Amino acid sequence: MDIADARALDDRDPLAGFRRRFIAPGEHDRVVAYLDGNSLGRPPLATRDRLIELIDEQWAGRLIRSWSEGWLELPAQIGDRLAAAVLGAAPGQTIVADSTTVCLYKTLRAAAALRPDRTEIVTDRHNFPTDSYVVDGVATELGMTVRWIDSDPASGVTVEQVAETLGDRTAVLLLSHVAYRSAYLADMAAITALTHRHGAVVVWDLCHSVGSVPVELDACGVDFAVGCTYKFLNAGPGAPAFLYVRAEHQDDFAAAIPGWMGHDDPFAMEKAYRPAAGIKRALSGTPPVTGLIGVEQGVALVEQAGIDRIRTKAVELTEFVTALVDVWLVPLGAGYGSPRDPRLRGGHVTVTHPDAARISTTLIERGVIVDHRPPGGIRIGLSPLTTSFAETYSAMEIFRDILDGATAG
Amino acid sequence: MDIADARALDDRDPLAGFRRRFIAPGEHDRVVAYLDGNSLGRPPLATRDRLIELIDEQWAGRLIRSWSEGWLELPAQIGDRLAAAVLGAAPGQTIVADSTTVCLYKTLRAAAALRPDRTEIVTDRHNFPTDSYVVDGVATELGMTVRWIDSDPASGVTVEQVAETLGDRTAVLLLSHVAYRSAYLADMAAITALTHRHGAVVVWDLCHSVGSVPVELDACGVDFAVGCTYKFLNAGPGAPAFLYVRAEHQDDFAAAIPGWMGHDDPFAMEKAYRPAAGIKRALSGTPPVTGLIGVEQGVALVEQAGIDRIRTKAVELTEFVTALVDVWLVPLGAGYGSPRDPRLRGGHVTVTHPDAARISTTLIERGVIVDHRPPGGIRIGLSPLTTSFAETYSAMEIFRDILDGATAG
Repeated sequence: MDIADARALDDRDPLAGFRRRFIAPGEHDRVVAYLDGNSLGRPPLATRDRLIELIDEQWAGRLIRSWSEGWLELPAQIGDRLAAAVLGAAPGQTIVADSTTVCLYKTLRAAAALRPDRTEIVTDRHNFPTDSYVVDGVATELGMTVRWIDSDPASGVTVEQVAETLGDRTAVLLLSHVAYRSAYLADMAAITALTHRHGAVVVWDLCHSVGSVPVELDACGVDFAVGCTYKFLNAGPGAPAFLYVRAEHQDDFAAAIPGWMGHDDPFAMEKAYRPAAGIKRALSGTPPVTGLIGVEQGVALVEQAGIDRIRTKAVELTEFVTALVDVWLVPLGAGYGSPRDPRLRGGHVTVTHPDAARISTTLIERGVIVDHRPPGGIRIGLSPLTTSFAETYSAMEIFRDILDGATAG
Repeated sequence: MDIADARALDDRDPLAGFRRRFIAPGEHDRVVAYLDGNSLGRPPLATRDRLIELIDEQWAGRLIRSWSEGWLELPAQIGDRLAAAVLGAAPGQTIVADSTTVCLYKTLRAAAALRPDRTEIVTDRHNFPTDSYVVDGVATELGMTVRWIDSDPASGVTVEQVAETLGDRTAVLLLSHVAYRSAYLADMAAITALTHRHGAVVVWDLCHSVGSVPVELDACGVDFAVGCTYKFLNAGPGAPAFLYVRAEHQDDFAAAIPGWMGHDDPFAMEKAYRPAAGIKRALSGTPPVTGLIGVEQGVALVEQAGIDRIRTKAVELTEFVTALVDVWLVPLGAGYGSPRDPRLRGGHVTVTHPDAARISTTLIERGVIVDHRPPGGIRIGLSPLTTSFAETYSAMEIFRDILDGATAG
């Protein structure tokens, strides 16, 4: 395998053209390879154009009228597009709003309220920190206890572990669909069914799968889901999150943060909260329009590419990296920290090394943008719309050279 | 008084030049006068420039590195600038985050937690709806009761009413500094002192005063405050809100929504929540960078203009409108729905009329952008950085003609 092979893979890549629809870094930014699109996706050209249009036309020109001429509908409208493009969800169940943390909070509160006679929230000990903090916070607030599943950090929570943990006190199970460290892809269908057999409800955190792995929320019978849009959806730094509430739960959705945008008639300015029908009751404050435009344009690109083609390329890219890790990095002291079976792996690969922090810094200094995830993980994010095989190859060469230098030194 | 007088006032206005630093509507937008800057401020040219720079340089070029190269500091950094420019607050007490609704929720939860032995939240029956919804929600959640002050909707909550309502069960008082309907300006100093004498804490909602009326949070001894940035601060549609926590309360600030951005060391990815020192513990999720840029640029303009000059012009504009309401509109059946004493009035004037809904629609059709606020209010927002006396005069002429036509018809 050499760079020519990598270029040949790019030549055959049906998604290769999408790379040109994003704004490239400048020469002075010294980016050899961007392997952190799973942390912050790159800016689509269309987002830049639409934001300028938003400012010049809707904001400057239509002014306050824009709220009734479209802005108020954006959270549900973009939610529906996201649902159709990548979530496997019918319309009317998804909105774009707040941050993932706030959406998680609202969702866990609503989920726990569906099982008022139960006392336990179950989650993964190695879940993303904000998930753990919110679970702890909600449990304390509601007088519930948390049961932590001791997952293997190099893989993730298995169906068997869930089966051993759930009990008749379990109200809610919260898991990440793709683990942020290992990229382990949980079995959403089996775990959701299992949770229901125990009489509990499930909340899936889709932050690391949305836009990279096909999701089938409706078909799996998922109760609630949340996720972020600034990773594989390329919506921009701190763009709003999304929240899915299965249609059958919406009438019972108790708004933890009841705000005017979740009211049945916000501009009637009624004194008492009267929740909107459907998913809109999950809204709280005024929709963040500039962030929403980023989500809209990010989703549009995923619609055009198709989630199945994205997934196919994600598997090819992670397989490509896996092969290079094995051939080049393992002999130099690195480990492989992700599932080897691509069916159990999302859109990134984690390389482990005792010196992960220092190596990550050196990689970034040499233009290979990766993410260090303590303790000991170097995360290589593969974003099918923007990542080329050639840049990935070049990055892995540099990675090898750094380890080789370290070993030689 | 004629249009020449209005133009003469513009000629003498030391803030007149600021109008050119905002993007004007196009001809086809048919805006004669924009009198809704207290609902959505107009776009500063600098915001457009900075957003393009953000996309091209920081997002596209520096990519994920931008988080550590400045983005992570924006919520507190812009909060400090806002605090110095208009809140009368020392650094380290203000952050920009979330929506007003979410900030209110977090703040009320934290405020109530400071008085665990008390059972009551007090607020204004005519507070902005989202405030009422959040108060109701938090009270239900914590098993508290709400006491509603029966304020006069044409003015607002007086010190005497607060004195009559507060008791030894009162944990928290939540009031708006400027009432969203009448523009009544509450006596923050006296009410805050009174609240403290009753052993309670106060939360001020500054949505309708920030950027229009000088605020002295530190000097008044205010405990907590929240506010929005898309009105007089011109930060853009749905731009993030802000939250002030007095320094002495920060160690006791209980994070209702504990998220990774409020953690002492977010990127250590610790499993247990360990709140950051200071105001940062009030953060939850990932900061919304595009929205924050809007706040930064909006605050920069207020810094340059100076809040005292802004307030002076706001008083002149509301006095100007008041005079025209009296001379032109009252004889045609309209009422004046704001405090007549400018010291008790914020940056807008409300005209009342039984046909307010229809009149508002007609005004907007004729290019005079106002806000209808049920049940009978037409709100005339005066935004000192962008509103001219001449456009206000033209707007009031059209208002008079509409009422005259309605009367004649």
